[in-house]
Amino acid sequence: MIRRITMPLRIGKVTIGGTAPIAVQSMTKTNTRDVRATINQIRSLEEHGCEIIRLAVPDEQSADSISTIKKSVSSPLIADVHFDYRIALAAMNAGVDGIRLNPGNIRDDEQMAQIVTAAKESEIPIRIGVNAGSLPSDFEPGLSLAERMVDLAMEQIRFMEDLDFNLIKISLKAFDVLATIQAYQMIADRASYPLHLGITEAGLPRDGAIRSAVGIGVLLYQGIGDTIRVSLSTNPCEEVSAAYEILKSLKLRQRGPTLVCCPSCGRSETDVLKLAQEVDKYLKKIREPIKVAVMGCIVNGPGEAKEADVGIACGKGKGAIFRKGKVVKTVSEENFLLALTKEIEKIV
Amino acid sequence: MIRRITMPLRIGKVTIGGTAPIAVQSMTKTNTRDVRATINQIRSLEEHGCEIIRLAVPDEQSADSISTIKKSVSSPLIADVHFDYRIALAAMNAGVDGIRLNPGNIRDDEQMAQIVTAAKESEIPIRIGVNAGSLPSDFEPGLSLAERMVDLAMEQIRFMEDLDFNLIKISLKAFDVLATIQAYQMIADRASYPLHLGITEAGLPRDGAIRSAVGIGVLLYQGIGDTIRVSLSTNPCEEVSAAYEILKSLKLRQRGPTLVCCPSCGRSETDVLKLAQEVDKYLKKIREPIKVAVMGCIVNGPGEAKEADVGIACGKGKGAIFRKGKVVKTVSEENFLLALTKEIEKIV
Repeated sequence: MIRRITMPLRIGKVTIGGTAPIAVQSMTKTNTRDVRATINQIRSLEEHGCEIIRLAVPDEQSADSISTIKKSVSSPLIADVHFDYRIALAAMNAGVDGIRLNPGNIRDDEQMAQIVTAAKESEIPIRIGVNAGSLPSDFEPGLSLAERMVDLAMEQIRFMEDLDFNLIKISLKAFDVLATIQAYQMIADRASYPLHLGITEAGLPRDGAIRSAVGIGVLLYQGIGDTIRVSLSTNPCEEVSAAYEILKSLKLRQRGPTLVCCPSCGRSETDVLKLAQEVDKYLKKIREPIKVAVMGCIVNGPGEAKEADVGIACGKGKGAIFRKGKVVKTVSEENFLLALTKEIEKIV
Repeated sequence: MIRRITMPLRIGKVTIGGTAPIAVQSMTKTNTRDVRATINQIRSLEEHGCEIIRLAVPDEQSADSISTIKKSVSSPLIADVHFDYRIALAAMNAGVDGIRLNPGNIRDDEQMAQIVTAAKESEIPIRIGVNAGSLPSDFEPGLSLAERMVDLAMEQIRFMEDLDFNLIKISLKAFDVLATIQAYQMIADRASYPLHLGITEAGLPRDGAIRSAVGIGVLLYQGIGDTIRVSLSTNPCEEVSAAYEILKSLKLRQRGPTLVCCPSCGRSETDVLKLAQEVDKYLKKIREPIKVAVMGCIVNGPGEAKEADVGIACGKGKGAIFRKGKVVKTVSEENFLLALTKEIEKIV
């Protein structure tokens, strides 16, 4: 897994691209004009580890509220702007750290030039955020979806480069995972700007997380991608947790504990699924990147549990607690949770 | 995405490998001796689309119950056997369709030869199911985890080939996603037997599904893999649904409806997340592989909804229902769900 090196840029305090850690983004789902609700959601996102936060800015009033919101939060904020170039200008005036434009729906060169000129003066990066759903219908109708998305992004890149602007990030999102992967692969060969990965409208939490994990996972494994957003139809904090799980699975980021747990089977002589849920709930309070194992039998239990910082391998009525590869004690079933959490407390 | 062609074999009525569809497997979590509970769980798994079902067989009584279970279910059954070769022989006597052996814990050549000879006579395939957690500690301690797993599998393959047995499937599972990917890539270059993919002890439903989607998704995208099992610490039917979501996202299988839904944002003027959940619940009853879209605003809504068989793009107080790319009607907010489901009913 060799990461493609891109031209780094800064969004507020966060570096995207180059050799910077792959940043986790999400988007507020509150009405941006509701400053209080939006600040609260941003703070929740920050607590979950979100590093860059995007806000929908559908009107000038929303753009204006950014200056108030910025005073109360520490994360870089990105304004998501469609259709109206004046809103992009207003958001920059309000002090936003980045802009996302959908080149499918601001098609006027003069308007786009005004945005780019203002962004250049204020050194505010722009994401060229192409979306399969809003490709102009008359744009290269004969080509594949991936080619159309890439060509629209390249057209926009050239336009910005002609204005001597290069604080550019690119995304090419579709619901179609294969088309999305293909589009990012193509643009990675044609441009050296940082790439923001995502599968658009991926769905409800479970299916959406799986679609996103496959699409984003394949690209990250190929070394493509500098920042990710998992789009889920749920509380945005779940998007952040899912994003970290993807990054953790490929060892690209660490965050919080990792729970190894066996799926249980007919060999299990204890309710390992219930114990795993209890341990998972307990681990929500822990911030350290420890690895905890809950195993339901002797077949794989001791072996896998040995690789974890702390683990339990449950047999009939009793279990073995491991710590850094060594059996610490044998405990009876009613003490499984207590004994395991006590060992966890010792190392965090 | 070009699939690697492997040597096909049959497990009961299901072909694995070659150009056969990538089969979905799961495992019962009931006590196999509890014949009634096990049959019920197998039937639930079959209803969810599970194509091959594995049962833990920890003792001869469990092996014997297979003959009773087989009479009541139609799926191919695989006996999961560890440590004791006599249990494998008993399971084959009881009419099982396949055996999974962990070469890490049956280390006696004479015992293994007895299993292979019996499998050859009955034409019962054996999965060489290597697991990171049960690699013998004295086996190639200096090599990487992936290399050790591959070498143990290759040793076992050669042993079986020497006995003129080639009804072989291979798995190389670890919790470590990168090591798992690497191991399967290596074995794909060295053997032409079908591969059973999985990430072991992946975790609770959400995190486990994400880890599995990344690991299995990367491999399938590379054309590697003939059958998959998603290991989750929950009801096995959820493993099957997650497996299909992975396969659907890469267009390798179709099953049931697909819900495209926007994650919602500050532009949304309706509770799109609630509507999406209601639609998702409704779709659970539908078996046809239709694509339904629930979009929360005009920016991406009409474009994406147009690609779906049926969709709704929700604006302020009213929404546009699309069907096969054409606007069918505009409906008021209180009729969103009703109008969408009526359109769905027309096409299924």
